[in-house]
Amino acid sequence: MRIVLDAMGTDHAPRTEVAGAIEALSELESDVEIVLVGDRDSIEAELSAYAEIPPGLTILHAPDRVTAADPPASVIRRKPDSSIVVGLKLHKAGDADAFVSGGSTGAVMATSLFTLRPLPGVDRLAIGTVLPTSAEPCLLLDAGANVDSKPHHLVQFAHLGNIFAQDMMGRETPRIGLLNIGEEPGKGNELSVETHRLLAAESGLNFVGNVEGRDIIRASCDVVVCDGFVGNALLKFYESVAAFIIQMLKKGLDVADTDVDLEDVFRVLDYSETGGAPLLGVDGVSIICHGASTPKAIRNALKVASRAVRSNMVEHSARELAAFIQES
Amino acid sequence: MRIVLDAMGTDHAPRTEVAGAIEALSELESDVEIVLVGDRDSIEAELSAYAEIPPGLTILHAPDRVTAADPPASVIRRKPDSSIVVGLKLHKAGDADAFVSGGSTGAVMATSLFTLRPLPGVDRLAIGTVLPTSAEPCLLLDAGANVDSKPHHLVQFAHLGNIFAQDMMGRETPRIGLLNIGEEPGKGNELSVETHRLLAAESGLNFVGNVEGRDIIRASCDVVVCDGFVGNALLKFYESVAAFIIQMLKKGLDVADTDVDLEDVFRVLDYSETGGAPLLGVDGVSIICHGASTPKAIRNALKVASRAVRSNMVEHSARELAAFIQES
Repeated sequence: MRIVLDAMGTDHAPRTEVAGAIEALSELESDVEIVLVGDRDSIEAELSAYAEIPPGLTILHAPDRVTAADPPASVIRRKPDSSIVVGLKLHKAGDADAFVSGGSTGAVMATSLFTLRPLPGVDRLAIGTVLPTSAEPCLLLDAGANVDSKPHHLVQFAHLGNIFAQDMMGRETPRIGLLNIGEEPGKGNELSVETHRLLAAESGLNFVGNVEGRDIIRASCDVVVCDGFVGNALLKFYESVAAFIIQMLKKGLDVADTDVDLEDVFRVLDYSETGGAPLLGVDGVSIICHGASTPKAIRNALKVASRAVRSNMVEHSARELAAFIQES
Repeated sequence: MRIVLDAMGTDHAPRTEVAGAIEALSELESDVEIVLVGDRDSIEAELSAYAEIPPGLTILHAPDRVTAADPPASVIRRKPDSSIVVGLKLHKAGDADAFVSGGSTGAVMATSLFTLRPLPGVDRLAIGTVLPTSAEPCLLLDAGANVDSKPHHLVQFAHLGNIFAQDMMGRETPRIGLLNIGEEPGKGNELSVETHRLLAAESGLNFVGNVEGRDIIRASCDVVVCDGFVGNALLKFYESVAAFIIQMLKKGLDVADTDVDLEDVFRVLDYSETGGAPLLGVDGVSIICHGASTPKAIRNALKVASRAVRSNMVEHSARELAAFIQES
């Protein structure tokens, strides 16, 4: 298995990517290779700090770099030699099985859409985010790939989330919830009322009904479906609260001195450490990481990519969607 | 000044309301009277536990009680003798200056709308919620009075929030932000793109542009405007994360043993203790409390009501809206 890692994506690229890749190779199965795509000189300079380079690590030169100033949709045309475009094309050509990047989310999304193409039955892509909860983690999608979603888009997201939860989170029959502001079927806005109706009629899903914001942390379901505007606002708010609390707690607290399992608190708060967010709905494995990722986050994202490949998640998604198209 | 307090609203009514009212009277100015509206016998039974009843406390008998099973819009017709209807009618008649309730949010909202009526220029009411942040608190509205808001509704909310922040939070020229998923004006869904355009054209507002979920806790503005679906989902999620963390921390942590100011953390997390949420846009003062309110929360809500009356918030709102109507 070969995973392409965009070496030029994060805020501290390529240092973070190089460190994350080396960590990942020491933990992943021996058949995993990682291709660092980006500026060869910069990558080699980072690698020179290591006494030993794992044999599974190679470099693919891509001289250009996508910046925040590049309009996402134009990257594929205007920056064909960028690490994002070169990396995704390698995946598309079948010379790599997955792509991971901490670069511009918009650029990775748009370029993934244009190169890998959507799976049949997918009208819109969704970003999935695995949120820690008080029990098992929960997948929230869409976390911001799209806004103004229609009910049938959310139904597609439910199917994509269903397969992700099975293949990537080990849930046999994932409980699918619809994010809403009330429990009863008639509650919510036009989008959620109609989506509820459609999801309740889906035979292939274990739809558990509406879930409220407060139910997420209580782990009342495995997959939470919502429009990307709500999902993104919610995640960014959560992230900032979490960062604020972690900062305050870490400032002066001696964990060894307390009875509280602070690691549990941090685990629940620190969702950014759970690794990259999968871009779901494309015909390939594309994992998006924070620009502020640490090597640990990159390592975790590479593990997510490797599990997605190993479990044939994309083929399963295609099959699930084909059944869904046939039914509807 | 006379404030009507629905004595039958919270989960532990009327005990919580009686305790909250007595606490409030000991702290508020001596011209404040509180009318407990509800079942006289139950209220008197609670009062009998107190050695001394403050002179400013009276009872208004209302034999009926609104339950969660009552459709909110039907309460005014079907339960005319309920504490909510009797209390709001007293306010409407001018025999009380404000109304506070921990009862069904929907019933308080609908009955407030039908009795007090909206202010001229208000098409939809909004629930405001004062969120603690890492610095000064911030008003978020709409927190769930409506869904599927149109751009001009959000502009009305901005004006209502502007006056609330001035009169109730002491901000001279409140910074108004629009909740969005990106900073640039063109970002977001159809609603936020058009609302941004309208708000940027408002001469009477200190509009600071889009704010993301992460900016709220950083206190980057005084008022955050959003659709009630997003606002409600966000608040419920926040509340559950906060409750979870507080619970974990309180379980085993000896605050005296640490250098961290845990009270600061709790202050940021425990937004439910900041008192009631004002229903903004009605021609009157109507404050909604959690069903799970503590006496402290009721006391704080009564203080919010008293400040709203003292500052003439409703008249200010009417004036602001009249100017806005004239301008547009």
